[in-house]
Amino acid sequence: MPRPLPAAADLISAIQAGDRAALGRTITLLESTRPEHLVRAREVITGLEDKRPKATPLTLRVGITGAPGAGKSTLIEVLGSMLTARGHRVAVLAIDPSSAISKGSILGDKTRMEHLSADERAFIRPSPSSENLGGVARKTRETIALVEAAGYEIIFIETVGTGQSEIAVHSMTDVFLLVLLPGAGDELQGIKRGIVEMADILAVNKSDGERIKTAQQAKANYHNATHLLPTKSSGWAPKIVLCSAIENTGITELWKVVEAYTTATRQNDWLTQNRKQQAQYWLHEAIQQGLQSLFSQNTAVREVLAKMEQAVTQGTISPFIAAEKVLQAFK
Amino acid sequence: MPRPLPAAADLISAIQAGDRAALGRTITLLESTRPEHLVRAREVITGLEDKRPKATPLTLRVGITGAPGAGKSTLIEVLGSMLTARGHRVAVLAIDPSSAISKGSILGDKTRMEHLSADERAFIRPSPSSENLGGVARKTRETIALVEAAGYEIIFIETVGTGQSEIAVHSMTDVFLLVLLPGAGDELQGIKRGIVEMADILAVNKSDGERIKTAQQAKANYHNATHLLPTKSSGWAPKIVLCSAIENTGITELWKVVEAYTTATRQNDWLTQNRKQQAQYWLHEAIQQGLQSLFSQNTAVREVLAKMEQAVTQGTISPFIAAEKVLQAFK
Repeated sequence: MPRPLPAAADLISAIQAGDRAALGRTITLLESTRPEHLVRAREVITGLEDKRPKATPLTLRVGITGAPGAGKSTLIEVLGSMLTARGHRVAVLAIDPSSAISKGSILGDKTRMEHLSADERAFIRPSPSSENLGGVARKTRETIALVEAAGYEIIFIETVGTGQSEIAVHSMTDVFLLVLLPGAGDELQGIKRGIVEMADILAVNKSDGERIKTAQQAKANYHNATHLLPTKSSGWAPKIVLCSAIENTGITELWKVVEAYTTATRQNDWLTQNRKQQAQYWLHEAIQQGLQSLFSQNTAVREVLAKMEQAVTQGTISPFIAAEKVLQAFK
Repeated sequence: MPRPLPAAADLISAIQAGDRAALGRTITLLESTRPEHLVRAREVITGLEDKRPKATPLTLRVGITGAPGAGKSTLIEVLGSMLTARGHRVAVLAIDPSSAISKGSILGDKTRMEHLSADERAFIRPSPSSENLGGVARKTRETIALVEAAGYEIIFIETVGTGQSEIAVHSMTDVFLLVLLPGAGDELQGIKRGIVEMADILAVNKSDGERIKTAQQAKANYHNATHLLPTKSSGWAPKIVLCSAIENTGITELWKVVEAYTTATRQNDWLTQNRKQQAQYWLHEAIQQGLQSLFSQNTAVREVLAKMEQAVTQGTISPFIAAEKVLQAFK
């Protein structure tokens, strides 16, 4: 039996009281395909935004990517725990384009962040599943709005992908972190050039024990490689940091570089401008999507569309004239 | 003073009588930003399609690309003239994403196809100009529908680009031809790997005089290179042909390969299936575009959108809730 739809006011006060289950429930509504669920979730976001203190400090949205096995989850676990210990509230989200098939390979298993998932100041949520990356990305972006309204200040968005999912994460974050493994020569294998170009910080993880020498060599290589890349619009030159999430070394240094990045990009106003551009992008994305579903929910449209799809396949009508007939049905 | 909008019936009968100026005029209407022009052009297409004999032979849509200087125009001139001499009617269109700026660098100068442009059985049209590649591609695709309805059987679509315009041409053609120059080692310079992967036939043009030896070497290299590519859904293995448009050598051989391609892909039904898929794609593209302009022409929408764009930029509202308000105005 489905649970009754909770009232917006109840969800709002529960979330304000720090109830993570209520937050999770609202995200589930946000991810639902039922329109009334989405409406309710948005009421919660609006309610939380209205009640949020005006002098709220700026949030920070951190994108994290890297090949499977690079230790992203462990790194987030250690970084996140350090930040909650400093009094921050931390949310961890994910964009996994394969989640529709694999039911979410990233963050699906919270045991990979055992410490952080037990932490009251942290909130972890696996990737939404959807038929397409666009849907996954849009839902994650809206979840960012929700967790920020709920008072989380540092949001990690993890991904692993083929480039497209990194572009999605890049379109909703302030800083982009690439997690790499030490290794000589072929260290960039499996990581597309476009992804390296997006990175603001390259974290060479597992730089411990016998791997330290290789890691230092890798750092020098990456340093040379990133110098060949075009200058970023943020004016920031990518930094390479050696760390080991398992041995908890280099983690404070890594975060210091993130802070140096935010200071620099706040000073030159890039951070604010970038957020404005991203907001415009998501506004138009959401309009596009809403328009599409308005259109496909129209019964008259669906009927004409089915007929026109057949006619176009048979070649009896030009696709453009067929499209006009479908649009006519919508009007 | 603008010319009065000609009647659809007049344009139809003129085009049926082989009047190329009337055809050009209709394409201009198709490319116009004024809705009544587009409506008129589509009336002409529908009228021509209705009057077209049922037993019309299949048309052939040939995409052609290659770096500037590879001799694409000369090759089309020679190929086209050979085909009109065989009794075919040939149309040459272009997709040039830079045409909005350069006013159409491809085919803009008909003197580059002096012979063909004087040929009654041929019709040449430069690239439409538009703010974006999507617009250019859509207009060209609709022009294909028009020239085919007008009785042209072989349609060349020329492009030169960065990969994106090749994808556009690929989405509306039956066969894809890459024109290359002879040259050892670095012959693929300037041509992206993705473009080579799209090619069904590689024509090594300017294979004449002292260049013949280099051309043969290039053919062997390309042969090895294309063997490493994944198998095409058409089942066709790319062929390499040496030719010289200027000396008119290898041209009949080149066309024989095109014919072998069409025979093979007709036999395994790929050609028909591919056309069906393309038609579906363009139907949905055209719907998307129509929906977008329906939306942006709505005054209420424009007002709310302007307000919401500002609010989102100031960060006072989530982009998704702003989008909902804009969509509400549309309803």
